[in-house]
Amino acid sequence: MTPEEKAEFRAEALRRYYEFCERKLHVDMSRGKPSKEQLDISDRMLTELQDGADCISNDGFDCRSYGNPAGVRDCRELFANLLHVDVGNIIACGNSSLSLIYDFLSQCMTHGAGSTPWSKLDEVKFIAIVPGYDRHFAMAQHFGIKMINSKMTPTGPNMDEIEELIKDPSVKGMFCVPKYSNPDGVTYDAETCERLAAMKPAAEDFRVIWDNAYCVHDLYEDRHDHLRNIFKLARKYGTQDHFIEFSSTSKITFPGSGVSVIAASERNVEMILNRMHYQTISYDKLNQLRHVKVFGNVAGIKLQMKRHAAILRPKFEAVEQIFEEELGGLGIAHWSKPVGGYFISLEVTGGSATTVGTLCQDAGLTLTKVGATYPYGYDPDDSNIRVAPTYPPLDELKISAELLAVAVKIACSE
Amino acid sequence: MTPEEKAEFRAEALRRYYEFCERKLHVDMSRGKPSKEQLDISDRMLTELQDGADCISNDGFDCRSYGNPAGVRDCRELFANLLHVDVGNIIACGNSSLSLIYDFLSQCMTHGAGSTPWSKLDEVKFIAIVPGYDRHFAMAQHFGIKMINSKMTPTGPNMDEIEELIKDPSVKGMFCVPKYSNPDGVTYDAETCERLAAMKPAAEDFRVIWDNAYCVHDLYEDRHDHLRNIFKLARKYGTQDHFIEFSSTSKITFPGSGVSVIAASERNVEMILNRMHYQTISYDKLNQLRHVKVFGNVAGIKLQMKRHAAILRPKFEAVEQIFEEELGGLGIAHWSKPVGGYFISLEVTGGSATTVGTLCQDAGLTLTKVGATYPYGYDPDDSNIRVAPTYPPLDELKISAELLAVAVKIACSE
Repeated sequence: MTPEEKAEFRAEALRRYYEFCERKLHVDMSRGKPSKEQLDISDRMLTELQDGADCISNDGFDCRSYGNPAGVRDCRELFANLLHVDVGNIIACGNSSLSLIYDFLSQCMTHGAGSTPWSKLDEVKFIAIVPGYDRHFAMAQHFGIKMINSKMTPTGPNMDEIEELIKDPSVKGMFCVPKYSNPDGVTYDAETCERLAAMKPAAEDFRVIWDNAYCVHDLYEDRHDHLRNIFKLARKYGTQDHFIEFSSTSKITFPGSGVSVIAASERNVEMILNRMHYQTISYDKLNQLRHVKVFGNVAGIKLQMKRHAAILRPKFEAVEQIFEEELGGLGIAHWSKPVGGYFISLEVTGGSATTVGTLCQDAGLTLTKVGATYPYGYDPDDSNIRVAPTYPPLDELKISAELLAVAVKIACSE
Repeated sequence: MTPEEKAEFRAEALRRYYEFCERKLHVDMSRGKPSKEQLDISDRMLTELQDGADCISNDGFDCRSYGNPAGVRDCRELFANLLHVDVGNIIACGNSSLSLIYDFLSQCMTHGAGSTPWSKLDEVKFIAIVPGYDRHFAMAQHFGIKMINSKMTPTGPNMDEIEELIKDPSVKGMFCVPKYSNPDGVTYDAETCERLAAMKPAAEDFRVIWDNAYCVHDLYEDRHDHLRNIFKLARKYGTQDHFIEFSSTSKITFPGSGVSVIAASERNVEMILNRMHYQTISYDKLNQLRHVKVFGNVAGIKLQMKRHAAILRPKFEAVEQIFEEELGGLGIAHWSKPVGGYFISLEVTGGSATTVGTLCQDAGLTLTKVGATYPYGYDPDDSNIRVAPTYPPLDELKISAELLAVAVKIACSE
């Protein structure tokens, strides 16, 4: 662009921005939150159990009472089938996989992972694949775990770099969202999974938080990513104890009222159940049973995910189309085009992400706090913006995406 | 008794014991578990929420989704009224108050209680009122907290002793079940509560786990214990930060599928919510809402407790009557006669509790593991047996109480 063209480009963007400001928007795109429409498709959860007789599990357990800390057998089987592990490798738990991750890290701090309690060590480090999930990073920071950034690649973590970092015995683990990663939407490819499984970290209590939050969260029927079964790979190398897998129905049924699960090696399951013995008498088995009865089997879950996809697909496509129309070919931004998950990751040039965030906020559009996708809230390039298109209705979303694109034009032409 | 009378007494007891053995009993009196009949009276919980419209809280929050980490406002209000504190002093949580206690202690270990993390200290001690709740003691042991026994009295903890023990700055707290204590059924009297509130422990981060598990669990309408409001007393002395109160509906609605709550000072609520921010996005608000809608108000909860009492009262009375008939006046045992809670505490002479437990187990009656009511599973007098009369049907319970009394006769006449 000539300087004149550039000035005109900026003036036009500013003009449109002020128009948006006058519309007094009030839109929240900060979190990966299902929309009301999505909640409605799970309402049959509410009435699935009608009386005491409905509350008996297949193995004859009255789920209205205490007991069965590893979870309702039927529910464990459902998730074992979903995650392709044996039922003995599954613990069915409460409403939040995040709190399971918290509990696991907390246990590593107070009791170690079959090792010295991490709280007794001078330094504990974790590898943070960036950009990544802000709540993982916040949790590590909460526990005083030092994070080392490693940039995500289109095929997953940069394994050359990871293999170097794990030579440090104070590096005790890493956070992975291996399918439709938050926020990039990357699914780790076969080679990456193989190399993760083959890792020989210096720390024998090295643990990968394998947060498989979006395991069945495909947007398209005809094209979706396939994640390798990490435990199957790990058993080849005898590294199955390195991986603790977490998943939940938070974005399958009701967020906050779903079921979460842990998948882990026999040794880790035993260690976790032992800790749980001190922690609780049992998780909410009625809610586990509701999920089993509503879905029946994995096909039932996949059918539910098709209904979600029908709501979500137009939203993702609308944002991508607007980005393409507004920002395509300008060289000031690029963005992910995920086939699943909950986010679009927008990268802007010139260290202008914070400015984009402020412009949007001032015009009534709340984005995920810029920087939040990096440890300590610090994005060294000030480039990443996590776009969460799921919550707003489609019409609001389109306006918001346009506003966001206009804000990028302003910020990048400064 | 003459030696001949004693021999006859023992022979008769043995004869009856072998008769019990031939009946091949299979009765579980080990845990404070509601009976099936009690579960049935909560079945309307299952169908209270029918559709999305039912899931909106009074303040307009769609409880099917994320958010509101302190809990549904309506639910917090209900428990604020029940526990006589302000709504700002209540956090409504998940299905288990035990896990809230675990989380609180775990936080003290990793982050302290506004102080040095306890895991960084050479020694952390807790006062254990004995006999007491086995899961409290197991949890403290799990965290490496050293327990110091202090004998329960008929009016609550021995305050002279407690006031001495807290002069040690490594004594960081104590466990209390202040109403219908587990297992003694003691409710702390007014003077005890006043002295607890007035405590000036050497440790500034001294914390009382005020586990008010049986706050409305009265057996009789005309006589029930009254527990003083510990926060009201504590505010007089400025010690409100010392007390963290826990309660739940585990024995009001469904054990394992109820709602648990924390009541605490503003400072502690803030600290706990701050930790929860890293731990979870929100607890199961649908289940909180179910409880609010089923009960409406405190009177609704009290009505439900009358229904429980109608089932439980005959069970407690049957056991007490059998104990009186079998063991009254013999000088070999005495037992509590609680007007609420879940347990009868049986004390036997001559260090014979373990023998009683073994005799019962061999005849098919499972009791709470003898010793479990003491830290480290060690009852120095081998005298306490926790009797949990709630779970078995009345006819089985009567046979079991008789067997238990016969076992006491055998063991104490050895």
